[in-house]
Amino acid sequence: MTNHRDVIVVGAGLAGLTAARALRAAGRTVQVLEARERVGGRTVDHRIDDGHVVEAGGQFVGPTQDHILSLAAELGVDTFPAFDTGDNVYVKNGTTRRFGNGVPPDPTALLDVGVLISRIDRAARAIPLDEPWRAADARALDAQTLATWCRRGAVTDGGVELLDILLGSAFGGTAADASALFGLWYVAGAGNEYTPGTVGRMMGVTGAAQDARFVGGSQRVSLRLAEELGESVTLGSPVRRIDQTGPTVVVHTDTDRWTANRVVVAVPPVLATRIAWDPLLPAPQEALFQRMSFGTLAKFEAVYPEPFWRADGLSGQAIFRDPTFPVCSMFDNSPPDGGPGVLMGFVGADQWRTWAPKSPTERRGAVLRAFATALGPQALHPTTCIEKDWTSEEWTRGGPTSVLTPGTLTGLGRWRDVPFGRVHWAGAEHVNHWNGYMDGAVRSGKDAAADILAAERITA
Amino acid sequence: MTNHRDVIVVGAGLAGLTAARALRAAGRTVQVLEARERVGGRTVDHRIDDGHVVEAGGQFVGPTQDHILSLAAELGVDTFPAFDTGDNVYVKNGTTRRFGNGVPPDPTALLDVGVLISRIDRAARAIPLDEPWRAADARALDAQTLATWCRRGAVTDGGVELLDILLGSAFGGTAADASALFGLWYVAGAGNEYTPGTVGRMMGVTGAAQDARFVGGSQRVSLRLAEELGESVTLGSPVRRIDQTGPTVVVHTDTDRWTANRVVVAVPPVLATRIAWDPLLPAPQEALFQRMSFGTLAKFEAVYPEPFWRADGLSGQAIFRDPTFPVCSMFDNSPPDGGPGVLMGFVGADQWRTWAPKSPTERRGAVLRAFATALGPQALHPTTCIEKDWTSEEWTRGGPTSVLTPGTLTGLGRWRDVPFGRVHWAGAEHVNHWNGYMDGAVRSGKDAAADILAAERITA
Repeated sequence: MTNHRDVIVVGAGLAGLTAARALRAAGRTVQVLEARERVGGRTVDHRIDDGHVVEAGGQFVGPTQDHILSLAAELGVDTFPAFDTGDNVYVKNGTTRRFGNGVPPDPTALLDVGVLISRIDRAARAIPLDEPWRAADARALDAQTLATWCRRGAVTDGGVELLDILLGSAFGGTAADASALFGLWYVAGAGNEYTPGTVGRMMGVTGAAQDARFVGGSQRVSLRLAEELGESVTLGSPVRRIDQTGPTVVVHTDTDRWTANRVVVAVPPVLATRIAWDPLLPAPQEALFQRMSFGTLAKFEAVYPEPFWRADGLSGQAIFRDPTFPVCSMFDNSPPDGGPGVLMGFVGADQWRTWAPKSPTERRGAVLRAFATALGPQALHPTTCIEKDWTSEEWTRGGPTSVLTPGTLTGLGRWRDVPFGRVHWAGAEHVNHWNGYMDGAVRSGKDAAADILAAERITA
Repeated sequence: MTNHRDVIVVGAGLAGLTAARALRAAGRTVQVLEARERVGGRTVDHRIDDGHVVEAGGQFVGPTQDHILSLAAELGVDTFPAFDTGDNVYVKNGTTRRFGNGVPPDPTALLDVGVLISRIDRAARAIPLDEPWRAADARALDAQTLATWCRRGAVTDGGVELLDILLGSAFGGTAADASALFGLWYVAGAGNEYTPGTVGRMMGVTGAAQDARFVGGSQRVSLRLAEELGESVTLGSPVRRIDQTGPTVVVHTDTDRWTANRVVVAVPPVLATRIAWDPLLPAPQEALFQRMSFGTLAKFEAVYPEPFWRADGLSGQAIFRDPTFPVCSMFDNSPPDGGPGVLMGFVGADQWRTWAPKSPTERRGAVLRAFATALGPQALHPTTCIEKDWTSEEWTRGGPTSVLTPGTLTGLGRWRDVPFGRVHWAGAEHVNHWNGYMDGAVRSGKDAAADILAAERITA
């Protein structure tokens, strides 16, 4: 079967669906080809009872994430505040301490964390967001890891360890994995055109990136987009080959052959390299995408009849600095009506590397022990558990986003968004503001659509 | 078409062919499936006239590379000494200086380079080659780049820059790209069971890794192996899917279906992840292979009627520390009879990232200007030029080998060679001695075959 569209979009995550919507609004015919039997990409909701879901992927939104917030509002998907009332818990090597807002009450790290966050914020402001490789000290920053950069000055192991716990969930990587230039750039992007990014806005809850959630689950935004697009979305159609050798672009799935004037590839770079390209991807873009390997992140959710911790004045939020536990942080992930109680733990970066190879039973036991250490023995007895390891997802292969290693941004970063012939790029990795977030995905989809419409005007 | 073999080998480079040979010698039926229309993987010879070839890929061998040397000897492929007579040339920002053996005569870097090499050699000896993540300071070494590690102490920019020039050709990466732990481990492996690796053995010519070449070209070893294997090698058959869900392993190419008791995947990790796996690769192995991105390296060869530089007492070897040139180093790559003269330049790492996007004409002009700056204006007028960019090779995608970034060895390194069900791994990346070299490839092929035979004895 061969069909023609003005634009074929590869991938029905937020980026691809947003691009398709914008192109259709501009009068173009589009088809979105999605490998999975569902839309939503790195967002997916799991039903936990008749009336409730929990989000197994991206879930939080907050101020300055204008693109996802306005899209959801347009589509009638409401937000509600993430539960952020009561004391948090800091677990360090088996001992627990309650604390209010702010950084954990760890005398061995407290001062350092404060100093470190100020240093990061200050350095992030000096990074040109659109061209980080033009930062004054770009080469030096990109020749070291974020861990090396953080250790400069008076920062103790404790400070860097705590930072790693935050990074573990923020990008599924450690300060040891990431280039310092990338890390500072990533923080710099945690804002919009008017508000510079800061560690606080990236890591915080109320008023920050974990401020709110979507009623009914984050995947609803994609589901609504797909409803709008109707038959313009084809599920279960992995794109295997993209051929630009002829007058139109030819996109091959296992069963179909689509032709188009332009293509938007809205899948993670790791998956983009696995498409058979004819001609091949330009060598520097191939080399860059190879280096945009995913972080490693899993989410673990435990469902209880009610959010029992709230009665104890606990927020359900915890930070774990304890190598015996697979989770680095925990959140109250209950539905807005507080019906069932849900605890969500991030198995991030370092913890993932230790715990992903173990059996689900062993991991479940250790996660629940972590939850119970923070909130009491009731946490040991959930009614159900849901675990989602994004590296095991065939059509994602990691999470939440690509972590750029030293040398990559300065050496090859400028190739990230360069169209390859008539193929344009979208996805949470292809954006400078809120890179790696739902907001970045939506923005990148709009950008790709706008680039295609602009390119057509030039060639027309 | 469905055919059964005891073992299917994916990839007809030195690793795959060696594995197939060993398995056949043990009485097993084998089939090697190769994507390209040739064997040899990262070794390939280009014919330059009726009687001569130049090597466009891996080419040098030296003492302690016992596996490739003994294999070549068995197959009747002779070696000859790489040309290493006369003065070398050091080009720095347009000025040239002749020098004898040893490190370049650069007063701004000389002392540092000496100190640095001693430090690397000493630190490399402390790395447990089989389990580098067990080094005493493994976590700290893996949390920093090799550049950071090298800069510690009194090392100037000049010292690190010179090291980068050496690394540029050695692994297509810079000291900024690589984990310090990986860099030290890579040096530690530049030897055999009896002789520890050193920078000198890795980087040197006579008596070191660039000691000798193969008469008739390095690809001849693979061609001889393929001759021996005869119809057990199938060219032009990219493996698209490997299915381990049934009682035998099923290997799918575009046209055929092969079944086997065991499979050896002898392709670079970057390509291994692009095979459709059912079930999927174990998540930690997927995460590791994602991070085993290739270095970036191209080779440029210029052919002259004769090796004119030899009459001037020049070796044809040069080191370029000059950002206006695409090459970092140059060698006399003439055939053993000295018939035509051939100069070979490495476009490595940093230079590649700048120069790969430019036009072949522009690159050729700049390379020849570099050669002429070192050896005189005769170098501007070759009879023919051959350029091989390994990142543009569909069935390689980089060169010469995988460069591990910070956090990878300690976090995921132990997954490198773990068999996935009935699938075993081979290739230059899957070995501890002479990783990334022809010798490592051969060793890995022997290891994979031995592992399969051992596994059969256990399960039998």
